[in-house]
Amino acid sequence: MVKPDTFQAINAFTGEPIIGSFPIQGKDDVDAACMHAHKIAREYRYTSSEQRAQLLDTIAEKLLLRTDEIAARAHLETALPLARLNGEMGRTANQLRLFASVLRQGHWHRAIVDTPDPQRQPLAKPDIRQQHIALGPVAVFGASNFPLAFSTAGGDTASALAAGCPVIVKGHSAHPGTSELVAQCIQQALSECELPQAVFTLLQGNKRELGTSLVSHPLVQAVGFTGSVSGGRALFDLAQQRPIPIPFYGELGAINPTFIFPNALNDYQSLAEQFVQSMTLGCGQFCTKPGVVFVVDDANSSAFIETAQHLISQHNGHVLLTPSIRDAYCQHTQLRAKDAGLLHSRNQNISEGVASTLFVTDSQAWRNNPQWEEEIFGPQSMIVLCRDIDDMQALSEQLAGSLTATIHADSKDYPQVTRLLARLEEMAGRIVFNGWPTGVEVSYAMIHGGPYPASTHAASTSVGASAIERWLRPVAYQSLPEALLPPALSSSNPLSVPTLVDGKTWMVKG
Amino acid sequence: MVKPDTFQAINAFTGEPIIGSFPIQGKDDVDAACMHAHKIAREYRYTSSEQRAQLLDTIAEKLLLRTDEIAARAHLETALPLARLNGEMGRTANQLRLFASVLRQGHWHRAIVDTPDPQRQPLAKPDIRQQHIALGPVAVFGASNFPLAFSTAGGDTASALAAGCPVIVKGHSAHPGTSELVAQCIQQALSECELPQAVFTLLQGNKRELGTSLVSHPLVQAVGFTGSVSGGRALFDLAQQRPIPIPFYGELGAINPTFIFPNALNDYQSLAEQFVQSMTLGCGQFCTKPGVVFVVDDANSSAFIETAQHLISQHNGHVLLTPSIRDAYCQHTQLRAKDAGLLHSRNQNISEGVASTLFVTDSQAWRNNPQWEEEIFGPQSMIVLCRDIDDMQALSEQLAGSLTATIHADSKDYPQVTRLLARLEEMAGRIVFNGWPTGVEVSYAMIHGGPYPASTHAASTSVGASAIERWLRPVAYQSLPEALLPPALSSSNPLSVPTLVDGKTWMVKG
Repeated sequence: MVKPDTFQAINAFTGEPIIGSFPIQGKDDVDAACMHAHKIAREYRYTSSEQRAQLLDTIAEKLLLRTDEIAARAHLETALPLARLNGEMGRTANQLRLFASVLRQGHWHRAIVDTPDPQRQPLAKPDIRQQHIALGPVAVFGASNFPLAFSTAGGDTASALAAGCPVIVKGHSAHPGTSELVAQCIQQALSECELPQAVFTLLQGNKRELGTSLVSHPLVQAVGFTGSVSGGRALFDLAQQRPIPIPFYGELGAINPTFIFPNALNDYQSLAEQFVQSMTLGCGQFCTKPGVVFVVDDANSSAFIETAQHLISQHNGHVLLTPSIRDAYCQHTQLRAKDAGLLHSRNQNISEGVASTLFVTDSQAWRNNPQWEEEIFGPQSMIVLCRDIDDMQALSEQLAGSLTATIHADSKDYPQVTRLLARLEEMAGRIVFNGWPTGVEVSYAMIHGGPYPASTHAASTSVGASAIERWLRPVAYQSLPEALLPPALSSSNPLSVPTLVDGKTWMVKG
Repeated sequence: MVKPDTFQAINAFTGEPIIGSFPIQGKDDVDAACMHAHKIAREYRYTSSEQRAQLLDTIAEKLLLRTDEIAARAHLETALPLARLNGEMGRTANQLRLFASVLRQGHWHRAIVDTPDPQRQPLAKPDIRQQHIALGPVAVFGASNFPLAFSTAGGDTASALAAGCPVIVKGHSAHPGTSELVAQCIQQALSECELPQAVFTLLQGNKRELGTSLVSHPLVQAVGFTGSVSGGRALFDLAQQRPIPIPFYGELGAINPTFIFPNALNDYQSLAEQFVQSMTLGCGQFCTKPGVVFVVDDANSSAFIETAQHLISQHNGHVLLTPSIRDAYCQHTQLRAKDAGLLHSRNQNISEGVASTLFVTDSQAWRNNPQWEEEIFGPQSMIVLCRDIDDMQALSEQLAGSLTATIHADSKDYPQVTRLLARLEEMAGRIVFNGWPTGVEVSYAMIHGGPYPASTHAASTSVGASAIERWLRPVAYQSLPEALLPPALSSSNPLSVPTLVDGKTWMVKG
């Protein structure tokens, strides 16, 4: 029998509960976690970059030591293959280590110094220095589709801990066991680094109240979220309606349009293989899945479609992350298959798991069916036949914001690609050329975000070194004596922080 | 007789209408302005940094040529002294030129390059490059208290034009004549620089509909606002409730707390003079006015208060910007004077204009009257007598967000100042040491913003070089061939853009 106020993890393969239970936490637990985090927030903000870098390295180490155990548990809870989960653990550790590097390099302070000029007329010019500081305790929502890399010790947790913010994670209810194992690694790392346990708290539960209490709590200073448009928008609204609104970094939904120029389609066989692989990667449960492909209607595009449909027909069924994701996938693909204007759809029934679904339509029908821009989570995509390149460009002008936009083209297409690029910059956070959007490199230049609904905060990224900025805000210090200046702004620059001096040079000394 | 659908400017000295009228614009005008701005937004975004720098320099030149005429008109409409308005014009020109420099230096692109590694295992590392691009058409609300520097060609307009965003200004209804003269200068500069007129539009009016239509318009991508908490919050809410929410950079209200340590008060005479000058600068109509001063109750602080009250008693009356600002000032100071817990208040009647008001209270009464944290716009401040430095620190822990926080201290106070600094960083955008918060340097390191209600977006500044960032968002480019890369990211770096390469070095070449 399951204890009251607890819930059980579900085996994603069988739909049956897994032995063991987890507390259903709520408002009181949120309150306690926030109070504890608030109490140590200033102490944690004042740790050195090196201390926090060591914490991140230690978490990575602890996680890698338990990869087999954690991946096995995540496999049961998500049905994602072990090889993928092992890879995701590597990626999670890399993320933590990237932010350790970011801390040691020091650009994150964004140090700026304006030197004084006491002789300036009519008024003396003061000494002004700027750095970025941590916001305070923040909330992070685990995502169902990346139980490691976008969850308990995922990108948002890593960047927030790097920034100097205590983190309260709301674990995703689809993989509570995974979350608990990962949280143990973080807690061990905090002990080993002699940092307060309240720097990190995992809250678990399967009730709405947990998330809404967290977003509404007056001591929470910002929120990182990855999930659906409806759930994410509701929490965004809550965050903005607080007496003191806070930044809500929500990654909500994206269809990641792909544009294939006619010359690129000469190689339709290889492109179709790549496309089908990308749209079905992780059973189509990637936020960067190519959800729509625009091609010009010609013989090559017909061959591309035929090849893609053939490849898909050979697939085994996909076991999706949770029963509710499976139900939503089946319902939405079946509903869409009944829409007028579809030329073909493929959605065979497979007894185990769900089938991949590929719709084909033309540009006129696409225009008539704005609901097709809504993301369907799972192994589904749509190919849109355009009359010509102008038609493709015209469709691009109407697209909503997306995480990515992809172009396949040959050098003969460049003049027209240039025009399309100018539009795609406006609607996507990342432009991919002659590649596919799935697979997000964890690096310095990466942007994983984009105009709404891809993100509720288009100027921010949840992947890559710049992600640390979402947890920081700038402070200027006017005429502070050396003895009182923060170390990152001290004239002797003991930390060798790259510094913009009088707007002209980036100086690293010390 | 005044034509229908027009309004007149008011002489701030007499309260009488000034000859001439201005259109009351509304929803249709917003629609037309947004359509025109949207139509040329891509073209303007693609102008070179040098073209936009020349535009900004040309606007500054045109404004300076008409300083006498514009200052004379602003003097009538605002009652601000001519000397101040001449100074403000210089500052406005400096802001425009600062952003011209920012454009030529190129840090604003925030260029980042990750070099590829085709040999990496298990997956090749792609070439990824990041730059920041303009958001598109933006709306800027003119402020009443800075008819030049925070208005039609003010900081937000300068930074948005620099970023590459077309700007639609809602002129403040308290100085429509000034707004129109300034707009003419911008329009002339656009002609001279051969840029589309739709890059800049001034909309005028005295009805709420104008502002709400602008913030709600689907083609507007961001809003800059300086004004009251009530008006600003209503527009912020509107911006967040749109189907596609947009950034709303609102500067709403601040009381700019000042903390004077006992050792600094040995020089109480000079501090009292500086304080009274700062709180009454521009008749107390500065957003950085020191609205509360915390001192430890001792003989020196009594002398400080006595001196300040004496200085204030010698002031002439202040003519405030508008009749409604005067009425609000009188009403709020009179109401507050009736609150229990005030030890002294000074608010003598002066036939012409309003009197300066200085309240004195103790820390217990301050705790009992949270409404005293609300900003009163005008020449008013409050001194709070604390039991000791711990009491002062405890009060600081409860303060709401503010644009600035100021400390006066002697080197003997530094250990306690360090503790206070750690708190003030959390609640203010700028810390001022042994100075006063009024007077905001326009430079690289300046931050004019801060936690709510100082700003609705604590990570952003409305003054200083970093202000350009509010109108930009990042885009990552994956595997783009050289021929298609934006000039700022090209490997040959023809623009000599400072670039972070593989997270390690800032490179300027070309």
